[in-house]
Amino acid sequence: MMFRQLYDRETSTYTYLIADEKTKEAVLVDPVIEQVKRDWKLIQELGLTLRYCLETHIHADHITGTGKLRELTSCEGVVPEKAQAACANRFIKDGEVLKLGNIEIKAIATLGHTDSHMSYLVNQDRVLTGDSLLIRGCGRTDFQSGNPGLMYDHVTQKLFTLPDETLVYPGHDYRGHTVSTIGEEKQYNPRFLGKNRASFIEQMNHLNLPNPQKIASAVPANQKCGDVPAIANV
Amino acid sequence: MMFRQLYDRETSTYTYLIADEKTKEAVLVDPVIEQVKRDWKLIQELGLTLRYCLETHIHADHITGTGKLRELTSCEGVVPEKAQAACANRFIKDGEVLKLGNIEIKAIATLGHTDSHMSYLVNQDRVLTGDSLLIRGCGRTDFQSGNPGLMYDHVTQKLFTLPDETLVYPGHDYRGHTVSTIGEEKQYNPRFLGKNRASFIEQMNHLNLPNPQKIASAVPANQKCGDVPAIANV
Repeated sequence: MMFRQLYDRETSTYTYLIADEKTKEAVLVDPVIEQVKRDWKLIQELGLTLRYCLETHIHADHITGTGKLRELTSCEGVVPEKAQAACANRFIKDGEVLKLGNIEIKAIATLGHTDSHMSYLVNQDRVLTGDSLLIRGCGRTDFQSGNPGLMYDHVTQKLFTLPDETLVYPGHDYRGHTVSTIGEEKQYNPRFLGKNRASFIEQMNHLNLPNPQKIASAVPANQKCGDVPAIANV
Repeated sequence: MMFRQLYDRETSTYTYLIADEKTKEAVLVDPVIEQVKRDWKLIQELGLTLRYCLETHIHADHITGTGKLRELTSCEGVVPEKAQAACANRFIKDGEVLKLGNIEIKAIATLGHTDSHMSYLVNQDRVLTGDSLLIRGCGRTDFQSGNPGLMYDHVTQKLFTLPDETLVYPGHDYRGHTVSTIGEEKQYNPRFLGKNRASFIEQMNHLNLPNPQKIASAVPANQKCGDVPAIANV
């Protein structure tokens, strides 16, 4: 398996390029519109065929690169079931497996940041957690369709029950971490450590964070799969 | 082997934490002073003993975290031979191997960015290239003791002769790439592609880049292993 973590500095977003080394089929998870040129160049250089652009959720902080990548390739845009994105080619359900050569990508509904958020377990040994579980943190639950109770339930019951050695690759990191493990997060994640459901909800309801700068434009653009008027450097 | 890539957003610097999972001995390669708190917390959480802070070179763009980490732990500061850093506990020579439990870290002199720069080949399968070979780029050669001819010789003769599948982990990336391979860089690195020694030198002598913002303070501070008056957030 080819596995590349890519970073968008402006929004601290991680995009993941995953490909089968034999069939050369590839998926991009959570591409960012401003980075389409970089990602498309890398895909071409590596001789890959982009089959899917896969979203963990409808993002509020950046616009997806899916629309531009669909223009450049014959890839399908895949979003979680119930996501408000009629533009998608395909909706993926909780428990469904996306195959890519010998690679298996299993969707795990991890709601709470939004009401249609998936994590993706890749070949059993690593999980892309989007904006649910972050390294020593978690996604916020105070806008869009956020729900802190669901965040607590799904992280503790669906992610923290994976094997301790499972690698955790988040959708963002703001401190410069690139990877963690389920074992580490169970032991050291301050958002969950020593919290029950009620105290977790209490905590999440009092974070008092400002809205993401791009929320007003990003959410409607992502509901159109990023099919928006050209951005200068794409 | 435990292998963690860590990122400093301000200077786009990568720090690497490498540890033997059995003996729990660890090395930090190119730590950044502003990130010492993060790195030290991670080392403690993972139950590691920091044996070495290892520098690829005397940096001009950021101050090393070695000084602070020596205050916090009993680690040794290791720098390339001939580096002007009398404060170091140990100097590592071209070809010398640093052992860390079952992990072998072999120094490969890759001069050109400075006159005392090492790359580190870790367990034969990955190379930390510091500011010599970057992903689709290379370190600049126009200040300190830079020498574009040496950069060309050492990258093409010492790094590009490693097996194609060797993973390349650079000291910086400014476009959000985290890893590459020797094969990819031989094929697609625009600084070297289609260049001979003379045209490479010509190119490097005409980059016309501004000096790094911190060069005036970073170089003398790094020659003292980062033993400088406290920085606010450390």
